[in-house]
Amino acid sequence: MTRTAEESEETTRLEAFSDGIFAIAMTLLVLEIRLPEEIPPGTLGDALLHVWRSYLAFLTSFATIGVMWVNHHRIFNLIRRTDQAILTLNLLLMLGVTFLPFPTAVVARNIRSVDARTAVLFYNGTFTVIAICWGVLWRYAVRNRHLMGKDVDERSVRGVSRQYALGPLYYIVAGGVALVSPVSSVVIDLLLAIFFAVPARVFHRQSTSP
Amino acid sequence: MTRTAEESEETTRLEAFSDGIFAIAMTLLVLEIRLPEEIPPGTLGDALLHVWRSYLAFLTSFATIGVMWVNHHRIFNLIRRTDQAILTLNLLLMLGVTFLPFPTAVVARNIRSVDARTAVLFYNGTFTVIAICWGVLWRYAVRNRHLMGKDVDERSVRGVSRQYALGPLYYIVAGGVALVSPVSSVVIDLLLAIFFAVPARVFHRQSTSP
Amino acid sequence: MTRTAEESEETTRLEAFSDGIFAIAMTLLVLEIRLPEEIPPGTLGDALLHVWRSYLAFLTSFATIGVMWVNHHRIFNLIRRTDQAILTLNLLLMLGVTFLPFPTAVVARNIRSVDARTAVLFYNGTFTVIAICWGVLWRYAVRNRHLMGKDVDERSVRGVSRQYALGPLYYIVAGGVALVSPVSSVVIDLLLAIFFAVPARVFHRQSTSP
Amino acid sequence: MTRTAEESEETTRLEAFSDGIFAIAMTLLVLEIRLPEEIPPGTLGDALLHVWRSYLAFLTSFATIGVMWVNHHRIFNLIRRTDQAILTLNLLLMLGVTFLPFPTAVVARNIRSVDARTAVLFYNGTFTVIAICWGVLWRYAVRNRHLMGKDVDERSVRGVSRQYALGPLYYIVAGGVALVSPVSSVVIDLLLAIFFAVPARVFHRQSTSP
Repeated sequence: MTRTAEESEETTRLEAFSDGIFAIAMTLLVLEIRLPEEIPPGTLGDALLHVWRSYLAFLTSFATIGVMWVNHHRIFNLIRRTDQAILTLNLLLMLGVTFLPFPTAVVARNIRSVDARTAVLFYNGTFTVIAICWGVLWRYAVRNRHLMGKDVDERSVRGVSRQYALGPLYYIVAGGVALVSPVSSVVIDLLLAIFFAVPARVFHRQSTSP
Repeated sequence: MTRTAEESEETTRLEAFSDGIFAIAMTLLVLEIRLPEEIPPGTLGDALLHVWRSYLAFLTSFATIGVMWVNHHRIFNLIRRTDQAILTLNLLLMLGVTFLPFPTAVVARNIRSVDARTAVLFYNGTFTVIAICWGVLWRYAVRNRHLMGKDVDERSVRGVSRQYALGPLYYIVAGGVALVSPVSSVVIDLLLAIFFAVPARVFHRQSTSP
Repeated sequence: MTRTAEESEETTRLEAFSDGIFAIAMTLLVLEIRLPEEIPPGTLGDALLHVWRSYLAFLTSFATIGVMWVNHHRIFNLIRRTDQAILTLNLLLMLGVTFLPFPTAVVARNIRSVDARTAVLFYNGTFTVIAICWGVLWRYAVRNRHLMGKDVDERSVRGVSRQYALGPLYYIVAGGVALVSPVSSVVIDLLLAIFFAVPARVFHRQSTSP
Repeated sequence: MTRTAEESEETTRLEAFSDGIFAIAMTLLVLEIRLPEEIPPGTLGDALLHVWRSYLAFLTSFATIGVMWVNHHRIFNLIRRTDQAILTLNLLLMLGVTFLPFPTAVVARNIRSVDARTAVLFYNGTFTVIAICWGVLWRYAVRNRHLMGKDVDERSVRGVSRQYALGPLYYIVAGGVALVSPVSSVVIDLLLAIFFAVPARVFHRQSTSP
């Protein structure tokens, strides 16, 4: 599955730009991990443990954006041409990615307070919207087959389609869990990131086969 | 409209550098969305709704920078060579882009206060200056035709020229609206971003035609 | 040791993405250098000297990430293909890199307090985990030789393997020193960064030989 | 003056990485422009004017890093190969660039206080160290001619050498002016950035000649 030079040039700038946003968003997350301004002397160790909520939120958002990066890579191995709509849909996706550090910070600060449910619902709401954007982008590309490489096989396309169709549902379910246990809901989000990374048959075969 | 390898190399580093600045500026915007330090327990939901001004400013600036990225892509499909002046004019443009998170934050914090007009005038002032920089950069390239690709057709050039000539005017008008209704002025800025993205005939044809 | 075009394309996006994260993490470090909010008039000079702890932490983390960038470059001159596992292991590595500004800030703020030991142990703990990630990534690539270039010679591979096997140990020892003298421990971390940069025989030969 | 593909690949990753750092450092500068937390209602306009010191510092640092980017581009058009020393010297240069937002903030906050001299001396001290790094990097490359392209002509090399030899001196003089007038010293720094951009004969000829 090799791209022609011309095709490659078309999506290259879009991919590089998106990679930049993924990388920056992932790196900015750390700015939201904060210790209290005043720590009683001799209790730094406790304080470092006490912010485990921040670590969990950091880790979950990092993993989710990281897996999005892998998936972005994957679908733009199949999508070889861009048009105005693809550019716009990709910008919508990036809007979601750049927004993520905000709900992440909201979760980190509120997950043990009375507002934990609200915070985690907001977090999962963001993920749901992002998952919908992925779905729309992908469906647009599939329906406009001239945007896809000619050598792209049906099975790869259907595999991706199936995975993305269910994406929003997963995050709505995860959001539902927040009503019972906010922490469990975030842990499910973390597991979802791992889940979206693992069964990547299409991508795997592509990159290891000669 | 294919570039020669030599031409491509000349603008590649400028484009990659500019893309980096676009991506970082877009991602930094989120740092300006902030909840109040102290939220009464149980009112997180209200607080998250209450910062809609921040969301509006975030969205408008994100959309504007995103559309600038698309337009930058577009004109550097026509401009194929760089000289010292192009580099300098491009740096001026980047100066405006990197400055944007500041007026965005000013708008977000003041749009419902007595200072709303001032804030939105400052915001539109920044957009106007940026639009002027675009115009100057583009006119310089058009007047020095050796910087443009030989296969670039007159109609594409004239299309872009017309669009950019009016850019500053649009933002001055949007600024005028701020005197009556600051929020409407920001909404107009958001619509302008969408407007600058949509009628992109030149770019569209280029990327979809073989 | 030249790559084929196909091989090059496979690792290019991974390398560009990682470079982005290295660059952003290095640049964000400066945000942690902060003067006290209130400085008595006429004492700015003293205040600038007084934050030497921040400079030391900034310098050490900068040097360590910088040398990681060089090493990343180095091993991806040998690794020419990617698979799902390499992508995931690389993301784990990036997780460590993006996390670093946090322990750096913890060290900067606490290195002269009662909590200095805790802070520096936390700092070295992070370095140890990162060093383990490097080791795992490298070992995975070595055991799956189809990921390496065919012209990669055994000596280069063994040289890198030896260096990485000891990495975590060095940082555990540096952590141990923190129990006696936290400042010395950070200085050792700085020297370790220089040490990891200098004996780079493999890389050096590659890039200077024709 | 065309590079061979092999040569190009060698410096490409170094240039992309450095461009990333330039772009991020330039974009982070805006985070240091801050209005006072509490602004009396109706005085936003005054507050926006009052931070002109921040604008001046922002503009000067932006221009200086922007011109460094142009110069970096320029010398790596002449330097075509890298070795361990070039990588290390380039990292030192990047250390200076990533550090710049800190002295910029110090200047912005203190330029009208009793501490203005100290702040501007610190600022110019940073520029001087960066200028020395440029000189060392360039001299190393000139002395190791196998790192330069074979078709690089003596005049280009000597032109760059002359310009860089005087760099540190200019900034020491600008620092001296700070003893009399801190604001003038910053204005001189801004003019120096413009000066370093303008007489770029070497680069100019390269990029406009076919």
